[in-house]
Amino acid sequence: MNKVILLNKRPHGKPVLSDFKIINEEVPTAKDGEVLLKTLFVSVDPYLRGRMNDAKSYAPPFELNKPMQSGIIAEVIESKHGDFKKGDFVSGMLGWKEYQTSNGQYLQKVDGSDTKLSSYLGILGMTGLTAYLGLTEIGMPKKGETLVVSGAGGAVGTVVGQIGKILGCKVVGITGSDEKVALLKSTFKFDQAINYKTTTDIKEAVKSACPEGVDIYFDNVGGEISDAVLANINKYARLPVCGAISLYNETKVPLGPRLQPILLTKSATMRGFIIGDFSEKFPAALKQLTSWLKDDKITFSETIVEGFDHIPQAFLDLFEGKNQGKMIVKI
Amino acid sequence: MNKVILLNKRPHGKPVLSDFKIINEEVPTAKDGEVLLKTLFVSVDPYLRGRMNDAKSYAPPFELNKPMQSGIIAEVIESKHGDFKKGDFVSGMLGWKEYQTSNGQYLQKVDGSDTKLSSYLGILGMTGLTAYLGLTEIGMPKKGETLVVSGAGGAVGTVVGQIGKILGCKVVGITGSDEKVALLKSTFKFDQAINYKTTTDIKEAVKSACPEGVDIYFDNVGGEISDAVLANINKYARLPVCGAISLYNETKVPLGPRLQPILLTKSATMRGFIIGDFSEKFPAALKQLTSWLKDDKITFSETIVEGFDHIPQAFLDLFEGKNQGKMIVKI
Repeated sequence: MNKVILLNKRPHGKPVLSDFKIINEEVPTAKDGEVLLKTLFVSVDPYLRGRMNDAKSYAPPFELNKPMQSGIIAEVIESKHGDFKKGDFVSGMLGWKEYQTSNGQYLQKVDGSDTKLSSYLGILGMTGLTAYLGLTEIGMPKKGETLVVSGAGGAVGTVVGQIGKILGCKVVGITGSDEKVALLKSTFKFDQAINYKTTTDIKEAVKSACPEGVDIYFDNVGGEISDAVLANINKYARLPVCGAISLYNETKVPLGPRLQPILLTKSATMRGFIIGDFSEKFPAALKQLTSWLKDDKITFSETIVEGFDHIPQAFLDLFEGKNQGKMIVKI
Repeated sequence: MNKVILLNKRPHGKPVLSDFKIINEEVPTAKDGEVLLKTLFVSVDPYLRGRMNDAKSYAPPFELNKPMQSGIIAEVIESKHGDFKKGDFVSGMLGWKEYQTSNGQYLQKVDGSDTKLSSYLGILGMTGLTAYLGLTEIGMPKKGETLVVSGAGGAVGTVVGQIGKILGCKVVGITGSDEKVALLKSTFKFDQAINYKTTTDIKEAVKSACPEGVDIYFDNVGGEISDAVLANINKYARLPVCGAISLYNETKVPLGPRLQPILLTKSATMRGFIIGDFSEKFPAALKQLTSWLKDDKITFSETIVEGFDHIPQAFLDLFEGKNQGKMIVKI
């Protein structure tokens, strides 16, 4: 049989397990021009929350009673498609299914020989591209500048901080546990890290960690953490908005200090993005990331959950910050 | 005698006349290397409000019991400076004084022969540069796009709209009276204009005026008007933040809907600026503005108040929207 996870209900606020439903289907067979894929690794990402709403976001909403989708690494177990053969590994935006067919469109072959397959969902996939292109294209870091990263212990955050260090910035991370603070400083070479859960005055903590002010704020969280960082930005600061995980589960329009006055007095630029905005730069970015990875200039961490049935829980755990680095479900 | 206007008190909220004090001084005399200037035209601008606070903004705060300053056109009535002669007209950031000396630094000679002198405070001065460079450098208008301008009836707004039209945009203005709505459509060729004071649902009004969504929002006001426009932006919208007049007199941090989620889902860019950010582009911009003005492709309006003593009231009137176009005091 073939397990499939459907969107059962649209979440109201924080998603819960009953928003998903696991069903059993027949294993499909590949027709001419198709491959049959066996799912190996499933990426769960905060941005999927937006697609669970019935609202136009940067991607169309998931349909009720249809399979959830995300970045997936799969193995070709049968091929009737000229470009793929049995045993190939592929990455693509695929359904949460143990087995599925594909006509090959948007599938990318990945090499499992000298790189961990799961890294194509992380450092050599959307995560790495998001970190690299958001930071370089919008953040435009210059040597000696101060970079603050929120959601610093997450998949994108850990990579952003390391790239910031490679490019000569002072890097300060904001994260949600002392364990992650330690990890950011040791494994990921952040200059400083702040545990926002145990810090009473985040604005002061950022000020103290960034005595020369904040030149770049790579924002993964939105909300009060971002307010605190914004209170410390320098003239001409750049603020890539990559995510707003603290706001995704809000059921009312979240209010906060109006940003126009601060952007105005600081001649600052805040820009939202999704990685597709920079698609023409993917090849060069992947080349750079691969080279840094080979030279051990950059590392990555994964939180691997095992078992197809645990995909929904792994997704929910993102909102509790239970992941360190990239959250991946191994099937 | 020589009348001088001092900052008497820092305003709490909306400025009032007693925040200013008019005193009499001796008319100064020019020393070697100096000119003696007689003030002819004084620009009053919303941004001066920020400098009346004791807070670091984009310019240092005015000092208590010291003269206020703004853009001024003056006549050289005595010169002991090699670069200037009696009868020259100059523009510069000068004190609110009937007469003052200057060492010539930052003074710019202006030509009163075939252009109205006051235009160097407006269309050929900071106003025109702000409109042109904010719109072109940050707004990056493309033919066929929709441009919304708030504070549309003000000095900058009227110019932004006209440039938008020249560059092929559909232009919608938001302003505060039916008279200004009519003027924007007739004199300044806006496609549509909205009177926010008589419109109950501005968001819907913007939506109806911009059926294809908003690509560029040139923001002079901040606050709820901006919320309404932001609810209608398109993917990849550009949002130059030029001013936030609706927020300048707030005594508490003004709250509003958090912007990160909308910037994120729309891959939109919001950027604050002051005109000094683009100083290297002034000559080319002035050349373009002068050419459009000569070719009657652009026009400008001024609200001229007469009399030195009326400078403070003219400034206060800005916050009531009593100006059409550039507010100028003629001495």
